[in-house]
Amino acid sequence: MVNIGIIGMGRIGKVHAESIMTGVKSACVLAAADPFMTGETAEWAKSLGIENVYDDYRKIIKDKQIDAVLICSSTDTHTPVSLEAIDAGKHVFCEKPIDHDPDRINEVINALKNSSCKYQVGFNRRFDHNFRAVKKAVDEGRIGDVHIVKITSRDPEPPPPAYIKVSGGIFLDMTIHDFDMIRYLTGSDAKEIYASGEVLIDQAIKDAGDIDTAVVTVKMENGAICVIDNSRKSVYGYDQRAEVFGSKGCVSVGNDKASSAEISTVDGVYSEKPLWFFLERYIQSYRDEIKSFVQAIELDKPTEVSVYDGLQPVRMGLAAKLSLLEGRPVKLSEIKS
Amino acid sequence: MVNIGIIGMGRIGKVHAESIMTGVKSACVLAAADPFMTGETAEWAKSLGIENVYDDYRKIIKDKQIDAVLICSSTDTHTPVSLEAIDAGKHVFCEKPIDHDPDRINEVINALKNSSCKYQVGFNRRFDHNFRAVKKAVDEGRIGDVHIVKITSRDPEPPPPAYIKVSGGIFLDMTIHDFDMIRYLTGSDAKEIYASGEVLIDQAIKDAGDIDTAVVTVKMENGAICVIDNSRKSVYGYDQRAEVFGSKGCVSVGNDKASSAEISTVDGVYSEKPLWFFLERYIQSYRDEIKSFVQAIELDKPTEVSVYDGLQPVRMGLAAKLSLLEGRPVKLSEIKS
Amino acid sequence: MVNIGIIGMGRIGKVHAESIMTGVKSACVLAAADPFMTGETAEWAKSLGIENVYDDYRKIIKDKQIDAVLICSSTDTHTPVSLEAIDAGKHVFCEKPIDHDPDRINEVINALKNSSCKYQVGFNRRFDHNFRAVKKAVDEGRIGDVHIVKITSRDPEPPPPAYIKVSGGIFLDMTIHDFDMIRYLTGSDAKEIYASGEVLIDQAIKDAGDIDTAVVTVKMENGAICVIDNSRKSVYGYDQRAEVFGSKGCVSVGNDKASSAEISTVDGVYSEKPLWFFLERYIQSYRDEIKSFVQAIELDKPTEVSVYDGLQPVRMGLAAKLSLLEGRPVKLSEIKS
Amino acid sequence: MVNIGIIGMGRIGKVHAESIMTGVKSACVLAAADPFMTGETAEWAKSLGIENVYDDYRKIIKDKQIDAVLICSSTDTHTPVSLEAIDAGKHVFCEKPIDHDPDRINEVINALKNSSCKYQVGFNRRFDHNFRAVKKAVDEGRIGDVHIVKITSRDPEPPPPAYIKVSGGIFLDMTIHDFDMIRYLTGSDAKEIYASGEVLIDQAIKDAGDIDTAVVTVKMENGAICVIDNSRKSVYGYDQRAEVFGSKGCVSVGNDKASSAEISTVDGVYSEKPLWFFLERYIQSYRDEIKSFVQAIELDKPTEVSVYDGLQPVRMGLAAKLSLLEGRPVKLSEIKS
Repeated sequence: MVNIGIIGMGRIGKVHAESIMTGVKSACVLAAADPFMTGETAEWAKSLGIENVYDDYRKIIKDKQIDAVLICSSTDTHTPVSLEAIDAGKHVFCEKPIDHDPDRINEVINALKNSSCKYQVGFNRRFDHNFRAVKKAVDEGRIGDVHIVKITSRDPEPPPPAYIKVSGGIFLDMTIHDFDMIRYLTGSDAKEIYASGEVLIDQAIKDAGDIDTAVVTVKMENGAICVIDNSRKSVYGYDQRAEVFGSKGCVSVGNDKASSAEISTVDGVYSEKPLWFFLERYIQSYRDEIKSFVQAIELDKPTEVSVYDGLQPVRMGLAAKLSLLEGRPVKLSEIKS
Repeated sequence: MVNIGIIGMGRIGKVHAESIMTGVKSACVLAAADPFMTGETAEWAKSLGIENVYDDYRKIIKDKQIDAVLICSSTDTHTPVSLEAIDAGKHVFCEKPIDHDPDRINEVINALKNSSCKYQVGFNRRFDHNFRAVKKAVDEGRIGDVHIVKITSRDPEPPPPAYIKVSGGIFLDMTIHDFDMIRYLTGSDAKEIYASGEVLIDQAIKDAGDIDTAVVTVKMENGAICVIDNSRKSVYGYDQRAEVFGSKGCVSVGNDKASSAEISTVDGVYSEKPLWFFLERYIQSYRDEIKSFVQAIELDKPTEVSVYDGLQPVRMGLAAKLSLLEGRPVKLSEIKS
Repeated sequence: MVNIGIIGMGRIGKVHAESIMTGVKSACVLAAADPFMTGETAEWAKSLGIENVYDDYRKIIKDKQIDAVLICSSTDTHTPVSLEAIDAGKHVFCEKPIDHDPDRINEVINALKNSSCKYQVGFNRRFDHNFRAVKKAVDEGRIGDVHIVKITSRDPEPPPPAYIKVSGGIFLDMTIHDFDMIRYLTGSDAKEIYASGEVLIDQAIKDAGDIDTAVVTVKMENGAICVIDNSRKSVYGYDQRAEVFGSKGCVSVGNDKASSAEISTVDGVYSEKPLWFFLERYIQSYRDEIKSFVQAIELDKPTEVSVYDGLQPVRMGLAAKLSLLEGRPVKLSEIKS
Repeated sequence: MVNIGIIGMGRIGKVHAESIMTGVKSACVLAAADPFMTGETAEWAKSLGIENVYDDYRKIIKDKQIDAVLICSSTDTHTPVSLEAIDAGKHVFCEKPIDHDPDRINEVINALKNSSCKYQVGFNRRFDHNFRAVKKAVDEGRIGDVHIVKITSRDPEPPPPAYIKVSGGIFLDMTIHDFDMIRYLTGSDAKEIYASGEVLIDQAIKDAGDIDTAVVTVKMENGAICVIDNSRKSVYGYDQRAEVFGSKGCVSVGNDKASSAEISTVDGVYSEKPLWFFLERYIQSYRDEIKSFVQAIELDKPTEVSVYDGLQPVRMGLAAKLSLLEGRPVKLSEIKS
């Protein structure tokens, strides 16, 4: 039995708490902490069977009974809390991104070097049934050498401007998942990135210093060319598709829907929209990434998303930012590693 | 909190136990009984948090703490256990079919008349996301008056001949779900049934006195004509589709798959097979029927699948058997009610 | 070069005229006849390059230059004109049905026995790309032994009551195509037929002595069970689908659409309706059946749809009529052959 | 009746000849010319009803009876033959590209200024049923303002290296169709282009000075961002898809297939590959572009693909070449207009 403490009880912290308490048999959440822990959240946690609820995450770090922590707090806390947890000998699951600054991620990497702690980064989409199926087809060689990868990743609605200001921008907040996905699907690191972007949806996003529509081309070390298209507002719902084209064929996955119902009327043939957003679309992947993390601890094997996997998409996001700023392709080697 | 006892810890009993203990917050399984309770099952039940494990279901019936029972034992026990449970004031969820004999089901109906017990029958497909979507489209009037209903229902592999002998035959064992579905989708009772059947898969099924392939036409009281096609062996997996055609259009649902992956190669375009069998395909519906049952108890409202809904498909199955035997359409009124 | 005369210049006669003059290189329409030949039609025929236009089809029969005739006139004339044409040594392509009376079709069969004339019946759907693909999959053994065949065949709108009165009823007018299709796909003759039907669309159809909605079950000599569902009014367009299920798998085909466009909006995902009716849906099959007929003449090989293939669906239609009338399954052997 | 002469009787010249002689009622091909006219081609042309067959295209230019010419000869001849034809007062349909050099295209533009000749460029995909449906959805405002356009355009097999050497490179030979398509779908001109490309398929293509895999990002004047992905070798067939995403939704079209057959077996669910190559996929669009050209002449209205529409994609191709060469985004204004 792996005893877990959750640090940060916002939306994603709660998702993990519920997943573990209802669906991961060999793990148990012993404690949850949040600096703004409300009575409601505390009660909810207790109803799930979580015995200890704290304002101060350090109580979790110090708790000898706890084997592993999930860091679900705000991005700026990911690195310091990771370091404290590793120092205390805890295994760490950290939500993405570890940090916006590669130097600080490297501090975590260094801390892990002299430690036996497991470290997993929250790139949950690697655990999604559809993307897993693409990866499997690629790994089995069914499409041969990878030539082109296409990722469509569009949110149903933009976050509030206040969030955008601290998000690090679309490339570090949203595209970062897609950067991880192309690394996952190609099994290669990025070499060069060219980003094209516009504000087409909301002037407030421009005022917050960001863009809302982007097309990013990434050349990988292995020769594959990847292209990601992002929008902050897809009115028909969360659009999450991928395609890998290679020397022997092509594999693609589409969106999930609540049902396969097709209604034919005098007006046309209607089917359902994609599931609305990430909580609907990826709920199972959140469960499966935690199961995988727990299993890595139990079986003492490497986690499926390493701290190195956490670093690279941040560097890719920084390269994309620079590319957009300077209007030129940027080599990954230009970004500190 | 609704306290539940499960009677019969075979495959479906275990499904319900796990669903409730991990996914139904306002219910708890206090006890489980099975005449052949193995050590392994008992241990598994305890690991889920089920405190009491019995050989004798009467211990559950007598337990004052228990509000409701799930009857998951063999079909021949459904009626007597239902009667005992109702007599003890328990709410009852009973797997389908209640019985092969309408007279015995009527005993349950009569027992319920002088009781405030809830009674729900395990026609889980009514809770499936796809069939729910069809029902919703019909109820919203999007396809107008219902003219034709088509149900495809094919199992991936036949049960063992020993099971077939006690199953009541394909119509009471397998088609019974489809009979329920056409009642659910049309909102009408059957008027006349014509069954056509053959043994095309396995001589052992013939030796067991049954058929393995059937097409059944059902005229409903409201004029709709329904057709069900069944096979005991669909090599590509569990084939579960429905279509309702009416004056304003048509709604159809297809099979669920593990992923939406499509692989295009020199040999063609491949996608995944349907999910293998009912545990894969209908797992969520098993959870949702139990949630609905618990909610009916909590809110003191009628269950979504009444004892009457349990009786009619049995009568339809008997009519289909008679039709096949005599080679003629059989009116439902010929079957005892 | 095969010289052709067309007898009957209604809608389907014109389709064949245009197909041949623009798309069948080794054939030429020398003459067209229609008792009600209008000036407009005559002019249209001449603009296509058809040199002779007559009121009296006998001029075509007598024309020594003409090798083959297409009989596209009203059903009651099919048999006498066939007999005259065969007597004059012409090859004959005859629209379906040859006749409503098997005795008269047998006259044609007898006339052909002492003749070297080719005779093809207009079951054009056998030449449709989708149904051909189903047939190919079946013939290649990809689905193994055929167990179940399902045909959906729904018209977008009913014909006028006046037409219905002389049509022979839905089974001889509309279902006859589906009866041919199940013979084509199974490679077997029918053994027993049970028809279920209602008037659900229009009282005028009832007044004309017909039904508008039908589900017909057909047991084939080879054990396969087929089911056909028909409606005279599918508001979303011509619904023409087929499915063959067997011991090794299942093959199905859907409807053709004008484009593959899918539009996702806040209201859902829309795609196009099926092509509206038979002229849109089957235009290529009309061309291909004529090409096949011309080729049978050129290469002196049997036609792809023989006079025997013309007789059987008529018998099946008569069996279905009797089944509906008497409310019982009818053996094909009860119908004169 | 529009009298037509075809200059160049290679593959595409023959396609047009057959289309017109069999499918365009108000046009007639009076003459065909090819410097390497074979006996076989001449005979084939005569069998179609084309009376005059020449080695020297000037006989067509000089023929007073001829109203319009189709220029289907090699690319280097497009401009001089266009100029001669315009000088002789002929309407011109010219295969793409008009020329690789904007200056020479401008000579054609200038010649047209003082002429009443119609001029249409052979961007046939604008007439394809699928792309038309996308355009219609965009024009009707169903997807709102256009934000992102995605074009997938992959050939089933590369042309021979000898052809590649004179082709002008992938951007002027293959991507040029996609450049036209994004102009057509967005209704806007390009502003800036960034091309990423590799040789991943065949070293011979590299030796011929070209690439075989490309991803091209194009920013349009109206703010839309477009991305095109190209491959010279898609083993599963011609892959021709498009998607337009905007403020109110998304419209996409997929590939055409020979049938809608789906075969489910123990190995998975199989459907057909896309149609093999452009002659299969776009045959109807070749017919429809010529019908449109003939109609522009008959009704004296502008052609649907103007000489300006012929110039812009060439400039875009040159910008893409420069971008690839210099590894930077190139503004269209850098390319001579």
